[in-house]
Amino acid sequence: MNIIDREELTSIKRRVDQGTEDQRKSVKEIISAVRNQGDTALYHYTETFDGVSLHSLKVQPEEIEAAYQALDGEFVEILQEAADNIRQFHEKQTSTSWFDTSTDGTILGQKITPIESAGVYVPGGTAAYPSSVFMNIIPAQVAGVTNIYMVTPPGKDGKVPDGVLLAAHILGIDHIYKVGGAQAIAALAYGTETIPTVDKITGPGNIFVALAKREVFGDVDIDMIAGPSEIAILADETAVAGEVASDLLSQAEHDARSSSLLITTCRSLAEEVKQEIETQLANLPRKAIARASIEKFGMIILCRHLDEALETVNEIAPEHLEVVTKDPFQQLGKIKHAGAIFLGPYSSEPVGDYFAGPNHVLPTNGTARFSSPLNVDDFVKKSSVISYSEEALQKNADKIARFARLEGLEAHARAVEMRKERWK
Amino acid sequence: MNIIDREELTSIKRRVDQGTEDQRKSVKEIISAVRNQGDTALYHYTETFDGVSLHSLKVQPEEIEAAYQALDGEFVEILQEAADNIRQFHEKQTSTSWFDTSTDGTILGQKITPIESAGVYVPGGTAAYPSSVFMNIIPAQVAGVTNIYMVTPPGKDGKVPDGVLLAAHILGIDHIYKVGGAQAIAALAYGTETIPTVDKITGPGNIFVALAKREVFGDVDIDMIAGPSEIAILADETAVAGEVASDLLSQAEHDARSSSLLITTCRSLAEEVKQEIETQLANLPRKAIARASIEKFGMIILCRHLDEALETVNEIAPEHLEVVTKDPFQQLGKIKHAGAIFLGPYSSEPVGDYFAGPNHVLPTNGTARFSSPLNVDDFVKKSSVISYSEEALQKNADKIARFARLEGLEAHARAVEMRKERWK
Repeated sequence: MNIIDREELTSIKRRVDQGTEDQRKSVKEIISAVRNQGDTALYHYTETFDGVSLHSLKVQPEEIEAAYQALDGEFVEILQEAADNIRQFHEKQTSTSWFDTSTDGTILGQKITPIESAGVYVPGGTAAYPSSVFMNIIPAQVAGVTNIYMVTPPGKDGKVPDGVLLAAHILGIDHIYKVGGAQAIAALAYGTETIPTVDKITGPGNIFVALAKREVFGDVDIDMIAGPSEIAILADETAVAGEVASDLLSQAEHDARSSSLLITTCRSLAEEVKQEIETQLANLPRKAIARASIEKFGMIILCRHLDEALETVNEIAPEHLEVVTKDPFQQLGKIKHAGAIFLGPYSSEPVGDYFAGPNHVLPTNGTARFSSPLNVDDFVKKSSVISYSEEALQKNADKIARFARLEGLEAHARAVEMRKERWK
Repeated sequence: MNIIDREELTSIKRRVDQGTEDQRKSVKEIISAVRNQGDTALYHYTETFDGVSLHSLKVQPEEIEAAYQALDGEFVEILQEAADNIRQFHEKQTSTSWFDTSTDGTILGQKITPIESAGVYVPGGTAAYPSSVFMNIIPAQVAGVTNIYMVTPPGKDGKVPDGVLLAAHILGIDHIYKVGGAQAIAALAYGTETIPTVDKITGPGNIFVALAKREVFGDVDIDMIAGPSEIAILADETAVAGEVASDLLSQAEHDARSSSLLITTCRSLAEEVKQEIETQLANLPRKAIARASIEKFGMIILCRHLDEALETVNEIAPEHLEVVTKDPFQQLGKIKHAGAIFLGPYSSEPVGDYFAGPNHVLPTNGTARFSSPLNVDDFVKKSSVISYSEEALQKNADKIARFARLEGLEAHARAVEMRKERWK
């Protein structure tokens, strides 16, 4: 992990993967095959890409029951507590319809309605996380979405990991389909014999999933297209090097393309963290991944003062930001762009990944400049409500007609003037 | 305009334009040229596509002053009143940061911050609407976006329409650039010598603009990709045929691909509206467009009862919905999907297009199932805030570590356990 002075830093490496032309072409072919052949295409691609020939796409109740038996009761309790925390936090995000009335009789407002159906993509393999099930589904449930469908690629044994099934079961989700990749996104967007069309698709995935989401966007809604995970830690001399290093590594172990940055005003901390990273790396199970990530995308940025450090943070707009300084709350107002902000030495990033309550689906790759964590608002839509009274229209009809004519829209003007017959 | 019984209706024609392969290719080329050559590419494309060779991309203060002089004072007042109404409505949409505290010291919350910069696309030609300037820019201003840039294609005379300049001036916007099409979107997404990079791009445009927005999505945020405008009117025997017909035509005059639907329980109203459409069409200035739209995408759907009519409305998920029934507020709870809902006979759609206050940038093409009108929330982002106390971490560290290990993420577990040193 290199230490670099802020003044010498020209840019932070970003790792947007837009996909190759070949990948884009193959995603389009897959989508088109699923639209034309439905389930047949899903079985075919599952055999080709996941190496398993399935008899049924839908997970059966026995499989969920088996997952329940396979995991011990204490663990089930932990999962349940995490789900409760996540639900509690998201319940605070709900908003309500509102109206505003005028004395002339006008009523204007916003009516909030949940979307009807959502599809959640849960990646397979080593990235099949029960926490992803919680983080994607709970906001939808809190919003009031009644039809929630989960898709996830099966292993070579045709199974879905126990933890994922258990997490879904805890949430009461029983529509789970064994299909992944672009074909799963296509199925949720356009429907097949088995899988229903949904209004919104969320959840992370590989480049094929990301490209497919971009392709179907507009026909259905999608969440942001996620890039590799990132952490930035803003620390001063009060931070403990071992803790900082362990938090950086927790991000680095995700993916060789993950990015871990320390932004500090303290040279001795920088040196110590660099050393700690080496020590702790040595006996991590996923050390190959973590080392690749640290070497390619890890960096310690030395700043002259806290304001410069904060400026650097805002330029980066990190997905996860830890603030480990003397008085972390003092810095909160100065942070403009970050997906999730962890304040103080006890708010290690994994606290938020699994358990505290806020969502771990966060804007990556600098998109925290304009995007939010997945939240309840993502699963509702707002309709404007306009009720004009006779008095209001009498007062304003001529102005509205004049405005319409300036825009060259005569029929608009006449539609309003047509009502004037009523008070002639 | 055909009358069709609900039972016989199989599907509503949708007009999604995904663009041809050639259009997609040319959009990619344009984006790449703007990224590589900056302003030079913008001047080049403006000459090619808009047929004008510009000396400067930026609108000069004299041009805004000239627009001001060209329009009469009374009209300026109408525009100002509309802007005030729109601002008042959108100010009711603002939300605030919040925190939740626990007795164990944990603080969880959501910090709301405006995005820093937004770019607004305003179409040129006959679709250069001052109201679009208001509807796109006011929500951004209310949200607290400080840097707002407007792009719009110049006419062959190198000018931007007076109404558009005046509307921008009323809002205090002075960064206006004469560039349109995919090249304008590319400029806002990636920046040129003259045009700065923004965080979010909104505003309607032709297929090249729509494809370019889809292409840059992810690097910057975009609003929904708008399709042709649509209206559905739900009416019973209390509705006045002339008024209903005039409202349908106000939609039809926008675009030959616009869609105007009447959904009614009353056969005599259906017959009368059909007749009225013919009569009113005869002397509309934009009758060619309106007739093409009505013939291809207009329809009167006869339902057996109000519930069937409401079901039909929800299937369509119209952009604009008028409810002209005996007690329109009684129906509001049954309407699940609509961009904007106009209640009662005085709430003619143009009331909302220009003047009442709610936004006219609405989800088209059935996307009201999952999308909202443009609103203040579109210009803020929410950061999660997590502050765990020592007590909270002591209580939960083992659970969090166990959860991490189930997901195969050892470094996550160790990051949390590292803190246990503190209370040993």
